[in-house]
Amino acid sequence: MKFMKKSFKNMEPYFSKNITDGIILNANESPYNVPDKIIDEYIKRIKKLNFNRYPDMAATDLCNAIANKFNVSNYNVTVGVGSDELIESAFRATLEPNDIVLSFSPSFSMYKVFAELSLAKFIPIDFKNNKFDVDLMLKNIKEYNPKLVLVCSPNNPNGAFLEEEEIKRIASSTNGLVLLDLAYIDFAKYDYTYLGMEFENIIAFRTFSKAMSLPSIRVGYAISSKDNIDMINAIKPPYSVTSQSLILAEIAIKNYDLYKENIEKIKSERNRLINEFIKLGYEVLPSEANFIYLNISNDLYKLLEENKIYIRKFKTGPSRITVGKEEENNALLEVVKSYENCRN
Amino acid sequence: MKFMKKSFKNMEPYFSKNITDGIILNANESPYNVPDKIIDEYIKRIKKLNFNRYPDMAATDLCNAIANKFNVSNYNVTVGVGSDELIESAFRATLEPNDIVLSFSPSFSMYKVFAELSLAKFIPIDFKNNKFDVDLMLKNIKEYNPKLVLVCSPNNPNGAFLEEEEIKRIASSTNGLVLLDLAYIDFAKYDYTYLGMEFENIIAFRTFSKAMSLPSIRVGYAISSKDNIDMINAIKPPYSVTSQSLILAEIAIKNYDLYKENIEKIKSERNRLINEFIKLGYEVLPSEANFIYLNISNDLYKLLEENKIYIRKFKTGPSRITVGKEEENNALLEVVKSYENCRN
Repeated sequence: MKFMKKSFKNMEPYFSKNITDGIILNANESPYNVPDKIIDEYIKRIKKLNFNRYPDMAATDLCNAIANKFNVSNYNVTVGVGSDELIESAFRATLEPNDIVLSFSPSFSMYKVFAELSLAKFIPIDFKNNKFDVDLMLKNIKEYNPKLVLVCSPNNPNGAFLEEEEIKRIASSTNGLVLLDLAYIDFAKYDYTYLGMEFENIIAFRTFSKAMSLPSIRVGYAISSKDNIDMINAIKPPYSVTSQSLILAEIAIKNYDLYKENIEKIKSERNRLINEFIKLGYEVLPSEANFIYLNISNDLYKLLEENKIYIRKFKTGPSRITVGKEEENNALLEVVKSYENCRN
Repeated sequence: MKFMKKSFKNMEPYFSKNITDGIILNANESPYNVPDKIIDEYIKRIKKLNFNRYPDMAATDLCNAIANKFNVSNYNVTVGVGSDELIESAFRATLEPNDIVLSFSPSFSMYKVFAELSLAKFIPIDFKNNKFDVDLMLKNIKEYNPKLVLVCSPNNPNGAFLEEEEIKRIASSTNGLVLLDLAYIDFAKYDYTYLGMEFENIIAFRTFSKAMSLPSIRVGYAISSKDNIDMINAIKPPYSVTSQSLILAEIAIKNYDLYKENIEKIKSERNRLINEFIKLGYEVLPSEANFIYLNISNDLYKLLEENKIYIRKFKTGPSRITVGKEEENNALLEVVKSYENCRN
């Protein structure tokens, strides 16, 4: 790439095949489409939409609806193109070249990319037996005085959950900003979005892409002090969330109760999957998210693909399987069982 | 903003009031909504959409449709959240701190913001009597050896048009990359998107936000060599364009012919507005875009607002008026005439 700057020469276009057929368990999506009632109301609204006008850049109605759900003021809320855009805006707002970013590792792969794009130094804090190693994090905070500390909980890709007291310990130990990525919190045993309001150095990030079944609309939001929200708003691109996405997200969050049954189903299927894999002799980590994390052999991975069952296998070895519908999980388990039977 | 880095301390949240009532001539939007046939097909498609799946990150169908219209290959095309996202990706891909960006000035205000976010130096090349001063640009290219040269034609906010031979002269004179922003090219006397294919150092950017009546969906696209498109794809956020926007943009570009009548109306109304203002004694620049550029007194600006007619008045003095529907332009002219009558 002739015009690419030297420091980025090794970057390659990220590519993920668009799979539309089969059992799709590779992207932590919900297996359930959006409830019909929400889509019906959405279509009613867009029939009256002036497509020829820019979106409301302040996202007033959506921010009000989110503020209402979390019992905060609308100036404590901002929305973006997925929580990614907001997380990256926090990177860009705070990081000078060579500043330090600490993140538990492995975690959401974009944190490292965002740090590189901001010319910052990314230091991974390894999990210890797949548990958050908070002591090691605190030691590194002391040593490096980071501008940003990344905490994704429940963590992608291993499903680990960090108790709220531990997050408070981290936030109290750093002068930097703690970015608390709660993409999977709806599947966890309890929620701590409120920490974004309680600590001046925590921003909580949430998304419509997982439990709300809306990755197609690319909407995430941040909750924090007015000062932190103003900072993100000063940096993030204006008008990035589409009018249609603003409308659909607003209807969805006002109808959050309609999602509860499916969320419970996913949680119980997750626990069932974990137990079934353990019965089959697999070592599976506890998970508070909508996916499980375990080692799958290359042969089994290929066999699953032949059966049009798609999971995510990382270059580092382990695999992440998104929890599907009951019948999808049964199909998955059937292939795994037949594979194990043939091996024995 | 406590956690904002020092170099950005003076940045403030961009704010633009969301006006939904009255005659809206301040944002270069089309006064015409999207043709019904397009919306009907769109609603049919989204009724079948799996909202719970991520968008196709390669935007395959939309890129194919665009490639087809411009007679290029699909690897010569990429799409983003407005052309803004793609233009900024080009900034981020190419600029090391302190690199030079040259841009004609005044022009689209985000170019300077993008340069600042990339820690680059932004050097404005002033218009000369509101004409592109290409000789001055060439002189500065020689002096500064810029990484990027920005050309917006027709130019926002003054409507000036740069002939294709002049763009070729610029591209041939620089080792840097020429970002050719063609947001308003549908309203101009001729199109030169093909220059993105002909010069290895030109990327042409286009948008669905203006002539296509679709600012609500936030879709822009870039056309250039595979090498340049790969570079943008390596930097731009994955999955940023929503599934709904991909679908609607695809239907719209396949039905481009449905827009032609309205585009002609806007061009002829633009010429009428210019003539009427000149008759009233105003100095108005020629414009090849869907807006006109002239000096409006503060009193007249206020009077227009009192009549719920909204135009864009810049801090630097001049105003930009988007061309509306015939009846909207008549309402505008009526207020201007009554104001001028009272003055005389």
